[in-house]
Amino acid sequence: SWIPKHLEAVKWILMFIIGSTTGLVAVFIDFFVKKLSSLKFTTVDTYITPCGQDYKCLMAPLGILIAFNALFVLIASVLCAFEPIAAGSGIPEIKCYLNGVKVPHVVRLKTLIAKAVGVLFSVSGGLFVGKEGPMIHSGAVVGAGIPQFQSITFKKLNFNFPFFRSDRDKRDFVSAGAAAGVAAAFGAPIGGVLFSLEEGSSFWNQALTWRTFFCAMSATFTLNFMLSGLYFKEWGHLNIPGLIDFGLFQCHGGDCNLWTAMDLLFFIAMGLGGGLLGATFNAINKSITICRLRHPLFQRKYVRVLEAVFIAIVTAAVAFLAAMMLGQCKPLSVDSASTSNISESVRTYFCPPGYYNDMATLFFNPQEEAIKQLFHQEGAFSLSSLAIFFGFFFLLSCWTYGCLVPSGLFVPCLLCGAAYGRFVGNVLTSFFNLSSVYSGTFALIGSAAFLGGVVRMTISLTVILIESTNEISYGLPIMVTLIVAKWSGDFFNKGLYDIHINLKNVPLLEWEADRQMETLQVSEIMERKACYLHLKTRVHTIIDILKTTTHNAFPVVSSYRVLQEEEEGSTSRTGWEDISQHHHLMSVNAVDFPQQTIQQLRRHHSNSNDSIPNGDVPLQSDPSSVVFHGIVMRDHLVELLQNRVCFMEHSSSSTRPVMQFVDLTRDYPRYPSIHDMDLTGINLNMIIDVSRYMNTCPYTVSPTAPVSKVFNLFRTMGLRHLVVVNQIGEVSALLFHFRYPPTPL
Amino acid sequence: SWIPKHLEAVKWILMFIIGSTTGLVAVFIDFFVKKLSSLKFTTVDTYITPCGQDYKCLMAPLGILIAFNALFVLIASVLCAFEPIAAGSGIPEIKCYLNGVKVPHVVRLKTLIAKAVGVLFSVSGGLFVGKEGPMIHSGAVVGAGIPQFQSITFKKLNFNFPFFRSDRDKRDFVSAGAAAGVAAAFGAPIGGVLFSLEEGSSFWNQALTWRTFFCAMSATFTLNFMLSGLYFKEWGHLNIPGLIDFGLFQCHGGDCNLWTAMDLLFFIAMGLGGGLLGATFNAINKSITICRLRHPLFQRKYVRVLEAVFIAIVTAAVAFLAAMMLGQCKPLSVDSASTSNISESVRTYFCPPGYYNDMATLFFNPQEEAIKQLFHQEGAFSLSSLAIFFGFFFLLSCWTYGCLVPSGLFVPCLLCGAAYGRFVGNVLTSFFNLSSVYSGTFALIGSAAFLGGVVRMTISLTVILIESTNEISYGLPIMVTLIVAKWSGDFFNKGLYDIHINLKNVPLLEWEADRQMETLQVSEIMERKACYLHLKTRVHTIIDILKTTTHNAFPVVSSYRVLQEEEEGSTSRTGWEDISQHHHLMSVNAVDFPQQTIQQLRRHHSNSNDSIPNGDVPLQSDPSSVVFHGIVMRDHLVELLQNRVCFMEHSSSSTRPVMQFVDLTRDYPRYPSIHDMDLTGINLNMIIDVSRYMNTCPYTVSPTAPVSKVFNLFRTMGLRHLVVVNQIGEVSALLFHFRYPPTPL
Repeated sequence: SWIPKHLEAVKWILMFIIGSTTGLVAVFIDFFVKKLSSLKFTTVDTYITPCGQDYKCLMAPLGILIAFNALFVLIASVLCAFEPIAAGSGIPEIKCYLNGVKVPHVVRLKTLIAKAVGVLFSVSGGLFVGKEGPMIHSGAVVGAGIPQFQSITFKKLNFNFPFFRSDRDKRDFVSAGAAAGVAAAFGAPIGGVLFSLEEGSSFWNQALTWRTFFCAMSATFTLNFMLSGLYFKEWGHLNIPGLIDFGLFQCHGGDCNLWTAMDLLFFIAMGLGGGLLGATFNAINKSITICRLRHPLFQRKYVRVLEAVFIAIVTAAVAFLAAMMLGQCKPLSVDSASTSNISESVRTYFCPPGYYNDMATLFFNPQEEAIKQLFHQEGAFSLSSLAIFFGFFFLLSCWTYGCLVPSGLFVPCLLCGAAYGRFVGNVLTSFFNLSSVYSGTFALIGSAAFLGGVVRMTISLTVILIESTNEISYGLPIMVTLIVAKWSGDFFNKGLYDIHINLKNVPLLEWEADRQMETLQVSEIMERKACYLHLKTRVHTIIDILKTTTHNAFPVVSSYRVLQEEEEGSTSRTGWEDISQHHHLMSVNAVDFPQQTIQQLRRHHSNSNDSIPNGDVPLQSDPSSVVFHGIVMRDHLVELLQNRVCFMEHSSSSTRPVMQFVDLTRDYPRYPSIHDMDLTGINLNMIIDVSRYMNTCPYTVSPTAPVSKVFNLFRTMGLRHLVVVNQIGEVSALLFHFRYPPTPL
Repeated sequence: SWIPKHLEAVKWILMFIIGSTTGLVAVFIDFFVKKLSSLKFTTVDTYITPCGQDYKCLMAPLGILIAFNALFVLIASVLCAFEPIAAGSGIPEIKCYLNGVKVPHVVRLKTLIAKAVGVLFSVSGGLFVGKEGPMIHSGAVVGAGIPQFQSITFKKLNFNFPFFRSDRDKRDFVSAGAAAGVAAAFGAPIGGVLFSLEEGSSFWNQALTWRTFFCAMSATFTLNFMLSGLYFKEWGHLNIPGLIDFGLFQCHGGDCNLWTAMDLLFFIAMGLGGGLLGATFNAINKSITICRLRHPLFQRKYVRVLEAVFIAIVTAAVAFLAAMMLGQCKPLSVDSASTSNISESVRTYFCPPGYYNDMATLFFNPQEEAIKQLFHQEGAFSLSSLAIFFGFFFLLSCWTYGCLVPSGLFVPCLLCGAAYGRFVGNVLTSFFNLSSVYSGTFALIGSAAFLGGVVRMTISLTVILIESTNEISYGLPIMVTLIVAKWSGDFFNKGLYDIHINLKNVPLLEWEADRQMETLQVSEIMERKACYLHLKTRVHTIIDILKTTTHNAFPVVSSYRVLQEEEEGSTSRTGWEDISQHHHLMSVNAVDFPQQTIQQLRRHHSNSNDSIPNGDVPLQSDPSSVVFHGIVMRDHLVELLQNRVCFMEHSSSSTRPVMQFVDLTRDYPRYPSIHDMDLTGINLNMIIDVSRYMNTCPYTVSPTAPVSKVFNLFRTMGLRHLVVVNQIGEVSALLFHFRYPPTPL
C-alpha cells in the first residue's frame, strides 16, 4: 500500500483536510448566525419603527425579542445538556488535552455537533458570548477525528485506516486543529500556531510547527474563499480573512496619526486598569462558577438549562430597555457616513435625521458590529452611555460565561474593553483637550487591556490581535498594554481559563518550576506505594492490580533471585500486595543486596534479550530486591487479557500466543475497561509474559534529583509518567557532543 | 542589595536595554550607509549627467565609482581580517551558538565593532550584500555583552555585576538579542522571536519567549523612533518599522486584486523554480566556499582582503557598464509617478523625459531601492533587462557571500528573486495575456521563492516576510511558495547556512532524529574511553586529565572499596590511566561486583552528604568498580587549581579551603586554560575534593536506550553532555501525574 511508505505526505494531506474542514465549520456557524440574527433584528425592527417613543407599544417588540432569544438559547442549552463538555469556550479543555490530561468526550464528533450548532444558537440568541473560543474547540475535534477515519458517535463511520492510533500522533493533530480554529476565528494563522505552542505542545518541533502552520493557513484560506463567495458573490477573491474583522484603522484629517509615542504612557495606564478590571471579572466569575459546581441545585441539568434561558431573557430585556430608554442622540460624522460599512450598522431609533442613538447602536447590534462601531465610529459616544453599557455588559457577560451554552470569551471581552477604551479616550479629549487622541486606537487598546486582563495569554494573544487588526504598527502598543495588563492582573489572581481548570481539579503543570521545587528531592514527593509487575505474571495478579489501581502504566521488574530459584522450580505467586509493603524500596534493597545479584542480572538480561524467553522462569514469592526492566501500559495489559495472550506454566515457548503491536492498538482510543470486561473462562493461573509489550527504556530519574529537574523533564518532554530508579549504577561512558554516526576520537 | 532579590525585574530591564541598543546599532548602520551611498551616487551622478552616451567620457565616473567601492570594501575587509568571525552573515555562527556549540570570539565587543562598521562599508561599497544578517549577529553580541557588564576587549569596562554568569543565562540573552536584531532589520518582532525559536532554543519557555518578544519590540520601537526622527524630523511619530521596507502594496484600477485564488497555481510553480534556483545558488557557493577553506592561497589573510576588493571592483564595473550600455528606455507610468517614493529612485540616464532606464534603475540604486522598484514600479521592465540583471546579480552575489566582509544574504536574495518573479509576471502578461496578474505580487512571490530556496527557513521566514510587507493577506501565497521552494530545494541540497555550518565541521544536531537512530543503541555509539575523577583526587591526576583531554565535563565516581581501604590508610594514587583501560566499564564491573558494595555505598553516601567530608577518605588504586556520583565541569576544576583549593591528606576538615560558587564563576566566560596556567608552587600530592563542586543529578541514560531517544533528550533539553549509567537499579516508585505539592493518594 502507498500509505505506510508515505506517512509524511499523508500527514500533509491530512493537515489540509483538517484545515479546510475547520474552515467549513466556521463558515457554517457564521452563515447561520448571520441569517438568524438578521431574521431576529429585522422582525423586531419592523415592530419598533412604527412605535416611536411610545413605551407601551414597545412591549410587543420586547416580547418578540425575548421569545426569539429564549428559544435560541433553549436549543443551545438543550444540546449542551446532552453533551455537557460542549458548554463553555472549550479552551480550558483543549489546554488540558494538549498537556496530556485526558478529558472524557472532549474530541468526539457528538461534542463537535453540540458545540457548533449550540454556539450558533447561543450567539444568535443574543447572549453576550463569542463564537471564537468554540471555533478553537471545534477545530481541535476536527483535528482529532479526521486522521482516525472513524467515529465513536457514529459507529458506521469507519474507513479502516489504522494509522496515527497513538496519543502522541493524535495530540499533534489536535494541536494543529486548534491552530486552524484560531486561524479561522480571527483570520490569524500565525496566532493560531502560537496559540497551539503556548497552550499545548511545549517542545518546538520544526516539522510539526510547519505542518500546523499549513493547516492554519488552509483554514483561513477555505473560510476566506467561502465567505467571500457567499457574501460578496466574488468567488475566487479573498476579502474576509476571519470570522471577526476589526475593520481598517485609518484616521482622517491631515496631521493624523493612529498613535504617537506619547500615547504609550496612556496605554500603560490603560493596561493597568484592564488588568484590574480583568481580575475583578475573574474573581466574580470564579464565585459564580464555584456556586455552579458545588450548589446542589445546579447538579440538575434542567436547572442549568433554565438558568441559561433566564440569562437570555434578562440579557434581552436589559439590552432592549437600555437601547430604547437610555440612549442619547449623537450627530453622525460626515467621515464615518462616507465609509459605508460603519454607517450601515448604526441604529437611529427616535433620533432626528443625521443623528444616531448611541446606546442602541451598541446594544442592538451583533457584538462584532458593536466592536466595529467603537473602533471606527467617528461620531462621539456619550460618556454616560459608554459607562452604562460597560457596566451592564461586564456583569451580564461575567454571569453568562460558564452557563450551559457554548460560549466564547474573546468577543465579549473585546467589546467590553472597547467601551472602556473609548471611555478613556473620550475623557482625554473632552476633559484634557488632547486633540491628538484617536479614539479608535484607544478603543482597540482598551479591548486588548481588558481581554489580556481576563485571559492572561501572552505572545499568542498579541499576535492574534495584531493579525486581526491587519495593522502591524499596532504591535508595540498592543504588546505594552498586554504586558502591563498581565502583570497587574497576575497580582490578584490567575487567568480565567486557569481558574476554571483549577476549579475542576485538573492536574495541569505550570510553565515554570516553583522556586520551592529546587529544594525538594524526588524521594520526598514520589509515591511510595509503587505497584509493579514481574516479567512473567499470573493472570489473577494482573487482574488484581488493574482492578485495584488507576495507574496508566506499571513498571516491570525482575527479582534477582529468579535464576537461583529456577532450579527449585518454585511456583508461588508474585504478589504486588507483598511488594507494596516495601514502602521505600531503595533503602530496603540497599540493605540486603544479595551476593550474586549482578551475575544473575547479567545472565537474566541475556536471556530476556531474546524476545521469547527460553525456558520456564518461574514466578517467585519474596521480591525483596528487584531490577527495573521497563514499563507496560494499562491499556496493553487489558488488551492482552482480552485476547487471552497467556500460557500455562510448562508450555513450550513456541506454542505461546503472541500479539502484534498493530493488534494491540486496534481499539485505540477506547480500550475496554477492566471492570467491564468479560473474564469468564480465563484460567487465573495462566501466565502473561509482558516483556514483549513493554517499553524497555523509559525516562528514569534518581530519587535524589531535585523536583524542579523532574518538573522540567515532564514539562519539556511531555511525559505522562517517570520511573524513579536509584543509581546503583556505574559510569559506563560520558557522551560529550553527541556524535552521530559514531566516530572514534 | 536590590538586584539579587529582583532578578526577574532585572531581566526585563536588561531586555529593554538590549533591544534599544540593538535598535541603536541598526540606526547607526543605516544612517551611515545612507550618507555614504548618497555621497557616492551623487558624486558619480554629477560626472555622468554631462556625458550623455559618450562612452569615453563615462570612463571618469566609472573610475570614481570603482575607487569609492574599492576603498569602502577595503575598509570592511581589513576590519574582518582583524576579527575574521565578523565576516559573513553571522547567522550560521549564531545558530551554532544558540544550539550550545561554542564558537570562539563570536559574541565579543570587538566582533560587534568589526561587524557593524564593516557591514556599513561593505554595503556602501556596492557589494551585493545585505545588512540584515549582520544585524542579527550584532543583536546577539549586544545580548551577550550587556548583561555581563564587562568586556574582554576593553578590560576597563567592568561594572562588577556578577549575575547571569552561566552559559544558560547567556544563551537566553543571546537569543533575545538575535530576535531584536531580526526585529530591527525587518521591522518584524514576531518573526524575530520565531527566528530565535526556530534556530536556537528548542524548548518553548513561555516566560523567556515573552521577554524575548519584549526585547524585539523595544528594538523596533527604538529604531522606528530614531529613524523617523532623523529622516522625517518628526520626533515621536513612528513611520519606519525596520531597516528594510517593502513599501505599501496597492494596485490601481477598479477591478484590481493583489492576487486571486487562481494565481496560487503560478505561485506553486514559482516556488518550484525558486527551489531549483536556490539549490543551484547553494551548490555554486558551496564549491566556492570549499575552495576558500581548503586552497592554500586563501589561507593568507591579505589574499582574502584582495579578493574582496577585487569582487568590489568587478561588481562596480559590471553594474556601471550594464546600467549604461544595456538598459532600455521604458515609459514612466502615470500611477507610479504619483507615488512619490517610487519615482524618486528611478534612473533616467540617456532617456527622453517621461521615460526611465530600466537597467540603471536596478543596478544603480541601493538594493533596497531596487527591490522597491521591482515591487511597485508600474512601468514595465523589459524581459531582457530582467534576465541580464538576474544573471549578473545571481553570479556576483553567489561569489560575494563568504568573502572576507560582513555580508548578509537576505537582501541580495530578495532582489534576485524579485527580478525572477517580475520576469515570470512579465511573461504571463505579455505572452499569455493574463491581465489579472499584478506584477508587484509576482515580484514579491519571486523574492520569497528564491530566498526560501537558498536559506530553507520555514515559519520564521514566512512571518518575517509577512511582517515586512505589512500586508497580512499575502500570508497564504508566501507560505505556499516557501513550502514548495523548501521541498524542491531540499531534494538537491541543504540550506546555505547549514552548508556553511557543515563545511566548518560544527557538530550541530538536526531537528529530527534519523530513522536509523531508532535501531542503534547508546552503547554502540558511546565513547568507550571515559575518563573520570574520584570524589577526592590528587592534584597531579587532575592536571594530567585536564591536560590530556579536551572534555568539558568529567563524571565523578567513587570506588566501592573506598571504605574498606579506609582502615588500611592506603594512599596510592587514583589514576584515570588505570581506569581508562576498562574500555567498557559496564560489562567489566558487572562481572566482579563485590559483595558489600551496597552497604558501603550507603555508608559512603551518608558521609558525603555532609558538605565537608569527615575524616580522611584516602584515594585508592584499583577502581575495578565505581559508582557514579555526578559530573564536574572542566572550568571549575581549573578554577579550583588556580585558587589552590586543595589540602594535605591528614589535614582536619575545618582547615580545608572552600570556594563559593560565586567565586567559581568569577572568570566566566573566559576561564583560564590549563595549558597557560602557572602551576609552580602547587603541591602535586595535595588532594582536591570535588564533591562540593559537582552536579549530583545530571541527566543520565541507560546504555540500552535507542539513540533516537538520546537525540531527543539532547535536542529538547539543550544538553551538552549526558552520562550513560547502566541500570542496576531498583524501582523505587512510579510517578504518575506529576503531583506538586505532594498529596497522598
